[in-house]
Amino acid sequence: MTRSAMGARTLPGEYFTSTEIHDRETANIFEKQWICVGRASAIPNAGDFFLHEMDGESLIIVRNESGQVNCFYNVCRHRGTRIQEAACGRIKKRLHCPYHAWGYDLDGKLKSAPNMMGVDGFCEQDHSLHTAACRVWQGFIFINQKQGGAALETDFQGILDRFDDWELERLVSAHEITYNVRANWKVIFQNYSECYHCSLVHPQLRPITSVETASNDFEDGQLLGGPMILSDEFKTVTMDGNQCGELLSKLSSDDQRRVYFYTLCPSLFISPHPDYVLTHRIERRSVNSTRIVCNWLFPPEVIQRDGFDVAQAVEFWDLTNRQDWDICELTQQGLQSRVYQPGPYSELESMLAAFDRHYLSLMTAS
Amino acid sequence: MTRSAMGARTLPGEYFTSTEIHDRETANIFEKQWICVGRASAIPNAGDFFLHEMDGESLIIVRNESGQVNCFYNVCRHRGTRIQEAACGRIKKRLHCPYHAWGYDLDGKLKSAPNMMGVDGFCEQDHSLHTAACRVWQGFIFINQKQGGAALETDFQGILDRFDDWELERLVSAHEITYNVRANWKVIFQNYSECYHCSLVHPQLRPITSVETASNDFEDGQLLGGPMILSDEFKTVTMDGNQCGELLSKLSSDDQRRVYFYTLCPSLFISPHPDYVLTHRIERRSVNSTRIVCNWLFPPEVIQRDGFDVAQAVEFWDLTNRQDWDICELTQQGLQSRVYQPGPYSELESMLAAFDRHYLSLMTAS
Amino acid sequence: MTRSAMGARTLPGEYFTSTEIHDRETANIFEKQWICVGRASAIPNAGDFFLHEMDGESLIIVRNESGQVNCFYNVCRHRGTRIQEAACGRIKKRLHCPYHAWGYDLDGKLKSAPNMMGVDGFCEQDHSLHTAACRVWQGFIFINQKQGGAALETDFQGILDRFDDWELERLVSAHEITYNVRANWKVIFQNYSECYHCSLVHPQLRPITSVETASNDFEDGQLLGGPMILSDEFKTVTMDGNQCGELLSKLSSDDQRRVYFYTLCPSLFISPHPDYVLTHRIERRSVNSTRIVCNWLFPPEVIQRDGFDVAQAVEFWDLTNRQDWDICELTQQGLQSRVYQPGPYSELESMLAAFDRHYLSLMTAS
Repeated sequence: MTRSAMGARTLPGEYFTSTEIHDRETANIFEKQWICVGRASAIPNAGDFFLHEMDGESLIIVRNESGQVNCFYNVCRHRGTRIQEAACGRIKKRLHCPYHAWGYDLDGKLKSAPNMMGVDGFCEQDHSLHTAACRVWQGFIFINQKQGGAALETDFQGILDRFDDWELERLVSAHEITYNVRANWKVIFQNYSECYHCSLVHPQLRPITSVETASNDFEDGQLLGGPMILSDEFKTVTMDGNQCGELLSKLSSDDQRRVYFYTLCPSLFISPHPDYVLTHRIERRSVNSTRIVCNWLFPPEVIQRDGFDVAQAVEFWDLTNRQDWDICELTQQGLQSRVYQPGPYSELESMLAAFDRHYLSLMTAS
Repeated sequence: MTRSAMGARTLPGEYFTSTEIHDRETANIFEKQWICVGRASAIPNAGDFFLHEMDGESLIIVRNESGQVNCFYNVCRHRGTRIQEAACGRIKKRLHCPYHAWGYDLDGKLKSAPNMMGVDGFCEQDHSLHTAACRVWQGFIFINQKQGGAALETDFQGILDRFDDWELERLVSAHEITYNVRANWKVIFQNYSECYHCSLVHPQLRPITSVETASNDFEDGQLLGGPMILSDEFKTVTMDGNQCGELLSKLSSDDQRRVYFYTLCPSLFISPHPDYVLTHRIERRSVNSTRIVCNWLFPPEVIQRDGFDVAQAVEFWDLTNRQDWDICELTQQGLQSRVYQPGPYSELESMLAAFDRHYLSLMTAS
Repeated sequence: MTRSAMGARTLPGEYFTSTEIHDRETANIFEKQWICVGRASAIPNAGDFFLHEMDGESLIIVRNESGQVNCFYNVCRHRGTRIQEAACGRIKKRLHCPYHAWGYDLDGKLKSAPNMMGVDGFCEQDHSLHTAACRVWQGFIFINQKQGGAALETDFQGILDRFDDWELERLVSAHEITYNVRANWKVIFQNYSECYHCSLVHPQLRPITSVETASNDFEDGQLLGGPMILSDEFKTVTMDGNQCGELLSKLSSDDQRRVYFYTLCPSLFISPHPDYVLTHRIERRSVNSTRIVCNWLFPPEVIQRDGFDVAQAVEFWDLTNRQDWDICELTQQGLQSRVYQPGPYSELESMLAAFDRHYLSLMTAS
């Protein structure tokens, strides 16, 4: 595939500073697109739940009695009270509102409402919890707040089986770190999408792989990015170059020597390695702050093996993450200047231009 | 009196989240209605004062030389400086601005203004402190910022002597606790106005009184609420069921077995007990925060008696208050959701429907 | 010169509380006028720099290879990243952006941009750092963000040599204190411009000089203020009345017995004493907060002398400063009241009326 930014320039400053554009993103992207909220393996049993906070909403992600994952707004249909206060846990059969004991089942249906029977026109069926669409794909839970929006299969068409060779669905997290970064979420996406900055910002990456080996598989739409090729002395990306786990068994010989860097707009980075998959879940918090949850995913049997140690992989990427967040924060500060003007993308930043095109198409869709 | 919410539903979410409505409340309610700012017994002598902060204003509540309580804006008529910095204290004859020593008497009249005598057109009489109306009723100090508004006697008509049997005017505070709650002031009012939540939220209240014994004396206007009847084993509401004080001497035999719960819109709850009166003074702070000052009032001779101990009453209501503030905060959070819709009131919530009607009538009055 | 406020009153409250007026000040004053950012002696060598923050901008003040002081916006022309993170230091030949290594010389010209050579239409000359005008006057560095605005010599005409007798240009700072005050910057200017408050607010000043000795040299425009005469027992303004330094050698016999208090709108107070010059650099932060950097300037040879001790001068003015900031904060609070109305200026406040006139003329200029 050709790599070219085709003369594109960075987005105008308002895209990184304006609360009006932030609100437009809420309506056009974050309330319409499929948003990754975590791994299904976090809630294996019926009644297991966790809360997801976004755009001022609290959402309950819960597995129901038949094993399906549901998403409810954490708002009682009586007086509006938050039903679940704990960040995660297990619900026994019913979600009970702590105020007046209204009880909902794990599909959100109102099953008991004390003292309401005599109320004129009251009907339990009218007072189910509000829901958002909820799907599990490759082990990730995605939600979509839009009623009657596109199916996940439609939106993710063309990438549905992209990660089958890494068996991404069955991988589990060996380590998790959460970062709070004072930068717009798009600055984070753009930083991840080029290695032009690697030689200056990430000196530890230089012996492992080089920007000259990078290419792009997808240049348009939902998924963007591609592979970089490992140097001969490195078997994966870790501090010492050795694998923490073992070679994933279904990889082609090419993929055994590659690290891929993919962005899934607007909430996920997936970085397949020969022996593990690194993921960054991106949570937009405000116009200038972003929460990032980073996970190191391995096959469960590898993690359980005696002597398994994820430290070499964690140390490498935690160092690299922190270098990235620092430079992202410096960039956010400069983008807030009234003299900032869109600057020219180099050819090494073609994925940023592609991200901008996809982002603007979402923002202008009716 | 019939108890019915008559099919009413909770207020739309914007009433608990919108700064525009907050500002409308300021103009239509908090700057027009009589607002309780404390007890007159706090400033017994000439010159005694305390500051009251509301809606960005600082007000000086001060007793003058003839014993009357006055209310002045804490703003010098020269350069605008705050005249009083201390939260309370005693003023000797004059309020002196600390900047250029302009001096005002305890009726707010400018009495000295150094170096101003030669200024063209300057006249001391034109530069009295700005005042708010100020009245003492049942021992409470009420202020009203509206110039030429309704007399307190007109607004409180029908309830002027409601609390005479408890001799509320002469009771004094044995204990005070201030709470800061992250909820809209109306959520606090609505929580106080029903006992539908009591069995779940206040298990300690169950043996003492039950929601089935509740009835309403007033269902329209300024004062709302009514009594609940004490169980046989309880002589008042305390942890052990015994009275901290002694039976108030003028109570009817019915009132000796009752606790009343009244709301006085928009700033006071009065809860007469057989041996004391509990009060909550409500200060709206912002659209989602409220300051609440809770007092346990007893006859002065009871408090001074050897062995008087208010702990059993304080412990009970402090526990109950904290349970209420927690559930109010959870409700405020849910009300901020964009999926929140007005929910149905039960018959046990008829006072909430009545509060909403009174509130909306104040908000729409011209 | 006559001293009269001519019936003027203080500014309406919105001038001290409105963010709309704050923004108008940004456009009409702070982005158009010459703003003092520090002393040139702080960056004596080529490459020495410090950052100046104002109105959300970060500006790099740096001395170039030929000794000239330049001012650049701290915003890379590529992706907008802050180029300098450190508050001060020395740059070796090039300012390098830490993200992708774009390099600028000390005149702001882009000299290297890795990987950009092949980009269609890219030209280094188009990507110099954005600049602000920068001038040194009397040892102070002034910047002006307006492109093609009035020359400093035009704006400061009539006061260009006012401070020559104190040899202000060559004086250096023996001590510096920074204050953060919760008051509008104009409240700070107005407090400095009258001694009507001195007897009440600054009792330690009473034996040294009196408001009756004050007069004004300038009553219109850029520079406002004038002298006060020292009492016989005081040789300068210090705690004990003795000089910390020694009599500045070029002073007239009149100036040897005087302290002057001048405001240079909108960012500087200059207070020449017989043996030193006190300066306050005023940084507007928000509508109700101001940062003030106070310096005690002496001839370099005096500071280097054995036994030189600035403590008596620092102690006096630090005490006086803190008294002033306290009363300014009380005034700011009162100005925020909705009952505040413009009050009458006394004749002792004629400079405040003059400040208001100059300020309003800047605010209404097109």
